[in-house]
Amino acid sequence: MMPTKTKGALHRPPSTVHRRIVALAGGVGGAKLAYGLAQILAPEDLTVIVNTGDDFEHLGLYICPDLDTVCYTLAGLANPETGWGRVNETWNTISNIEKLGGPNWFRLGDQDIATHLERTRRLKGGQSLSQITKDFCKAWGIKHTVLPMTDSPVRTIVDTDEGELAFQEYFVHRRCEPRVKGFRLDGVQVAEPVIGAREAIESAEAIVICPSNPWVSVDPILRIIPLTPAPLPKGEGRRDKGKKVVAVSPIIGGKAVKGPAAKMYSELGIEPSALAVAEHYRGLLSGFVLDSIDAELSMKIAVKTLATDTLMKNLSDRARLATDVLHFIGSL
Amino acid sequence: MMPTKTKGALHRPPSTVHRRIVALAGGVGGAKLAYGLAQILAPEDLTVIVNTGDDFEHLGLYICPDLDTVCYTLAGLANPETGWGRVNETWNTISNIEKLGGPNWFRLGDQDIATHLERTRRLKGGQSLSQITKDFCKAWGIKHTVLPMTDSPVRTIVDTDEGELAFQEYFVHRRCEPRVKGFRLDGVQVAEPVIGAREAIESAEAIVICPSNPWVSVDPILRIIPLTPAPLPKGEGRRDKGKKVVAVSPIIGGKAVKGPAAKMYSELGIEPSALAVAEHYRGLLSGFVLDSIDAELSMKIAVKTLATDTLMKNLSDRARLATDVLHFIGSL
Repeated sequence: MMPTKTKGALHRPPSTVHRRIVALAGGVGGAKLAYGLAQILAPEDLTVIVNTGDDFEHLGLYICPDLDTVCYTLAGLANPETGWGRVNETWNTISNIEKLGGPNWFRLGDQDIATHLERTRRLKGGQSLSQITKDFCKAWGIKHTVLPMTDSPVRTIVDTDEGELAFQEYFVHRRCEPRVKGFRLDGVQVAEPVIGAREAIESAEAIVICPSNPWVSVDPILRIIPLTPAPLPKGEGRRDKGKKVVAVSPIIGGKAVKGPAAKMYSELGIEPSALAVAEHYRGLLSGFVLDSIDAELSMKIAVKTLATDTLMKNLSDRARLATDVLHFIGSL
Repeated sequence: MMPTKTKGALHRPPSTVHRRIVALAGGVGGAKLAYGLAQILAPEDLTVIVNTGDDFEHLGLYICPDLDTVCYTLAGLANPETGWGRVNETWNTISNIEKLGGPNWFRLGDQDIATHLERTRRLKGGQSLSQITKDFCKAWGIKHTVLPMTDSPVRTIVDTDEGELAFQEYFVHRRCEPRVKGFRLDGVQVAEPVIGAREAIESAEAIVICPSNPWVSVDPILRIIPLTPAPLPKGEGRRDKGKKVVAVSPIIGGKAVKGPAAKMYSELGIEPSALAVAEHYRGLLSGFVLDSIDAELSMKIAVKTLATDTLMKNLSDRARLATDVLHFIGSL
């Protein structure tokens, strides 16, 4: 079938959308939108910068949960049930570690362990995380650019009513049970953005903040790679020419699609909502995408909004939301 | 059926054999005889001391090939086809490491990797190899005592016509192709026998040198834990009372059952044979067990010999050979 010539984004065949985009992503939600964007944008038009604040060492393995979720998702290797980990995974290593009395709280699949073993081997050999990620993406057939936010070790520390906890300790081992009081990013003072990140942002038309946890997925990226605040609106018309920044709310109807974002907002004394997310990024945004069920919040949000179906239940949802976001960017 | 009361070892029900034995073992051949001995001897009557000169670090994992082969075999977890590795093994990690361009020459199964990950984690946490081995044996249901020869890192280095090679590099990566000129045991100067090894030997009636490679499996153990040479024969009668040492030839009809022992003898200018093995241990032995097809060599061997079927093709072969060896020890 010939591509239609209608100009509406929804009718454009994927390859005709030419917008140079940088997406900032954490784990599952971010990975899904990144996947959608990658279906539509040419490889040279999309760079995904991924949070590494969740990274940790476990069983001697250097594990990058968000980076792996993004890469597995882009490569079509992710487990569709969980959103993280590998599809058709087996669990023979972890079940045998368990039999030996070893730690089993972080569920490592056999295929997944290969990623960690080989990455750890290369890191010990002196390769950078970004070089390793580039090589792995190539091996997995990922054509778009995926960058860890930094090659330096930075670690999200969650301050809770039970004291400070390393992120995975809080997130996986303690199942987000302790009440959150705040967050700290260890190592941020000396961490530099990964090579290529600033250049990608400079040459991009827009930055898309994916529907990831604002506190522990996106904030770490913004700490390492601060975005220049969006220029103030001029009168009622268009903004000054500048980098467009659009965020997609990970909170729908007051609830996080996945993960502890809503719980974190509540525990920090903020009512969890798409509005709270927009406020979180206040001063940074050119536009904000929220779910249709939250459309009424639009009037309280200072920037232009797009209310659309943001829940990504299947692969076509991802492409549809990505198309909507790109179209919205075009309208800003 | 009631156990027969015949006194011949072959007719004794396993549990009635009470000999305190220390077995020195390398990989597959040693593990098989150790298994046979463990079928017959009570847990308190058998200590298996295992070569650790083959140990190496690979992919950040601390791997003990001989120790694992012995333990997997004793636990009934070994792959019956190969003699090493785990039964019902899967290979999802290594095949994914391969896809990432990582090293794949050492075939690590998914279950096997659990052993290495958990051992490495514990070693890094300060536990000794012997303590870890003890814990693993308990987890695997092994009731007899298995000791690594030492807790210190010692490494067999093979001197070849292509220069010195680390053992696994020579053995697995290069498939024993380079011509052997000699062997060196790195770290031997400072390595102490593991706690319990000397005590086990002192309280043992006999030491059984299993049918393992004399150069690279047994010699390293003997370097770390030297055995007192057997007393010289007194006239034509019995030896003086002393520790009995019996070796079982790993070479049958001039060929090694498994591995490069025969090739090593040839390359070192010695005709590979059971006789060469007996000569290898000269001065140490009270008795020597060789295969029936090599029976005619007995007359050239200075100590008492037992010619029997030494090839262990199945589980009952192992128990039969162990019974023969124990009976032979009783006759010395």
